Amino acid sequence: MIHVAILGFGVVGGGTAEVLTQNHDLLEKTLGQPLSLKRILDLREFPGSPFASLVTHDINDILNDRDISIVVEAMGGLHPAYDFTKAALAAGKSVVTSNKQVVASRGAELLALAKEKGVRYLFEASVGGGIPVIGPLRRDLAANRVTRIDGILNGTTNYILTRMLSAGVDFGAALAEAQQKGYAEADPAADVEGHDAARKIVILAALAFGKLLCPERILCRGVGSVTTDDMQTAEAFGCVLKLIGHAEKIGERVLCTVEPRLLPAAHPLASINDVFNGILIEGDTVGRVWLCGPGAGKLPTASAVAGDVIEAAAHPAPPAADLPFRAADEEDYADAQAAVSAFCFSFAAGDDAREKIAAVPGQGQIIAQPGRISCISAPMTRRDAEKAAAAVGLPLLSLYPLL
Amino acid sequence: MIHVAILGFGVVGGGTAEVLTQNHDLLEKTLGQPLSLKRILDLREFPGSPFASLVTHDINDILNDRDISIVVEAMGGLHPAYDFTKAALAAGKSVVTSNKQVVASRGAELLALAKEKGVRYLFEASVGGGIPVIGPLRRDLAANRVTRIDGILNGTTNYILTRMLSAGVDFGAALAEAQQKGYAEADPAADVEGHDAARKIVILAALAFGKLLCPERILCRGVGSVTTDDMQTAEAFGCVLKLIGHAEKIGERVLCTVEPRLLPAAHPLASINDVFNGILIEGDTVGRVWLCGPGAGKLPTASAVAGDVIEAAAHPAPPAADLPFRAADEEDYADAQAAVSAFCFSFAAGDDAREKIAAVPGQGQIIAQPGRISCISAPMTRRDAEKAAAAVGLPLLSLYPLL
Repeated sequence: MIHVAILGFGVVGGGTAEVLTQNHDLLEKTLGQPLSLKRILDLREFPGSPFASLVTHDINDILNDRDISIVVEAMGGLHPAYDFTKAALAAGKSVVTSNKQVVASRGAELLALAKEKGVRYLFEASVGGGIPVIGPLRRDLAANRVTRIDGILNGTTNYILTRMLSAGVDFGAALAEAQQKGYAEADPAADVEGHDAARKIVILAALAFGKLLCPERILCRGVGSVTTDDMQTAEAFGCVLKLIGHAEKIGERVLCTVEPRLLPAAHPLASINDVFNGILIEGDTVGRVWLCGPGAGKLPTASAVAGDVIEAAAHPAPPAADLPFRAADEEDYADAQAAVSAFCFSFAAGDDAREKIAAVPGQGQIIAQPGRISCISAPMTRRDAEKAAAAVGLPLLSLYPLL
Repeated sequence: MIHVAILGFGVVGGGTAEVLTQNHDLLEKTLGQPLSLKRILDLREFPGSPFASLVTHDINDILNDRDISIVVEAMGGLHPAYDFTKAALAAGKSVVTSNKQVVASRGAELLALAKEKGVRYLFEASVGGGIPVIGPLRRDLAANRVTRIDGILNGTTNYILTRMLSAGVDFGAALAEAQQKGYAEADPAADVEGHDAARKIVILAALAFGKLLCPERILCRGVGSVTTDDMQTAEAFGCVLKLIGHAEKIGERVLCTVEPRLLPAAHPLASINDVFNGILIEGDTVGRVWLCGPGAGKLPTASAVAGDVIEAAAHPAPPAADLPFRAADEEDYADAQAAVSAFCFSFAAGDDAREKIAAVPGQGQIIAQPGRISCISAPMTRRDAEKAAAAVGLPLLSLYPLL
């Protein structure tokens, strides 16, 4: 009999309790043994909930319960989630989490502790909600040297950009809609400014390249300054504008960025709309695969958590291999300013704009829209793109790399 | 030390040998132990190949070699691939395969034998080439009751349909192009008539619903009769025509079909073009996820095979759970004639075509093209659709269900 505890009875914790209960027969059949939800930790009481009798306010009721072998951490935030995770692993329990903040900042340490204690630390739900992506990266694609990863990793901002394009509403109106529909938090900063996507891309990069970068140290631009004019410019170039988490290995260093980018309409991620997420993985053997679906939400996230609970129950001991990643050192960070792409420049149109824009190296088609003139450059470093923009002598409205 | 043998040194076997060699350090790091390719079975000699010294013509050299714990079956065809698989499992070796024909017709028996012998029978490469789909279905999505699966499962026919749409060439010309590019076999019947896709959809359905249908017994229509007029009609209705493998559970029975269907342009599979494959899985917990990438090819398929080799090496014993599926009984087959969808009808236009087409129940927009008139019906059974077509009294040009 496998006994499970859940820390945090919010959206994800509640969804997990629901799935473990409703699909109980299926889980036991898959697992080949009985599975039981024994305890739920939360500060609140839940009178009337079918799970009310399982609720405790004391983490020690879980840590000291020798029956409980798997702890689901669904609290969110760094503390006390990190501390409870550490204590649970130290007590010889496997931990399954949806908490990208803890994984992105302390994942290397927690994986090492899990290995030392002979238990699992699993986090499929921390990236891409219900989309299988960490499992495929670690297992099905394990024979690949991953060359790059690009992902639409945040559903809220993808909804906002989709609405700005399809309904022509501005950023503020699209955000208000997202909040009204429950897609965006009351304080949407972590989504809108790209921090949520930054945590997710460093986790994926860690699995692909073995080094966990600090999410606060990567180049991260959100969608707050994207305008409907930008969206229309992208469209005029046959592209769509998406918030992309990008990771690649440059020599021995790892580059991770989060920023709005132009995607050609035929790019596999260009058709990922609304709150959906999509992750494109490029490997030396497989080529390109893309994995798409609901990147958030109560039940999709619980699907990923419950999948990891099954994994931890079926294989309670960690694999014999090396740890999948370690914390990055100073010399593991690639210089984002030196990364090369083509860029879309948009300038405020002046009398001599067409002449001046010729100063941008390698531009092809020039698109004129009311009040702005735009071009696509030749591939260049971000540093050179900023220099080129300054050299043109027209006010820069926006500068986006192409994917 | 894990010793591997490969049966069949063709495209997939050769690709697997290449990946096991080129990404050897990566595989050993992932596995935490040494891995070695020891033998290759083929009727031919391969003088000059770096693997020439490993080649044997006698299966007993592999079956009797106690060092070899994992056998990769990449021979294709039913015999002797099935017989060698059985012998290898009986000899206590795990078998990894890309052979959809063997899995689709004998998979249930071989899984049972593997379980009895305490070894693995793994077949990620049998569906979707390099796309992780069997792993995600069995593991990451294991907490879901799958409600339906729809897939573009054959790259050759997807290439043909893509070219018919984008270049306006007819079926014969598109097929010739596919053959010239090496996407289609000299004898393309298994692809074109849908049998390849039928094998793949019964494998996916077996994993989702626990019952392996016989691929020869499911409704299977290929793309041979699709015309460029059909493609244009689909487009006029805002759809694209794709060859879709479909599986769902109807009561306790399983429905599997392969046929060309109209997909609304916004459907996640509508943008899967060229030789790519895509599989959309619907589960009660996760909602919809779709997994896409190269559905065939030497290295993509080898990526899936090598992933399963790692899995068999890391977990040589089968899971404690029930077998994932058993062979279907007579009463497991759902009646494809009773399955309900909307249908696209195209009739040869006559003088009174618009009046007559009013006999099709629930049609909305009517599209007239030179020589043909088309409508979309209300949802109805396939049986009723065929009756409705006959009742109209105009020659039927095509009848396709919508996805």
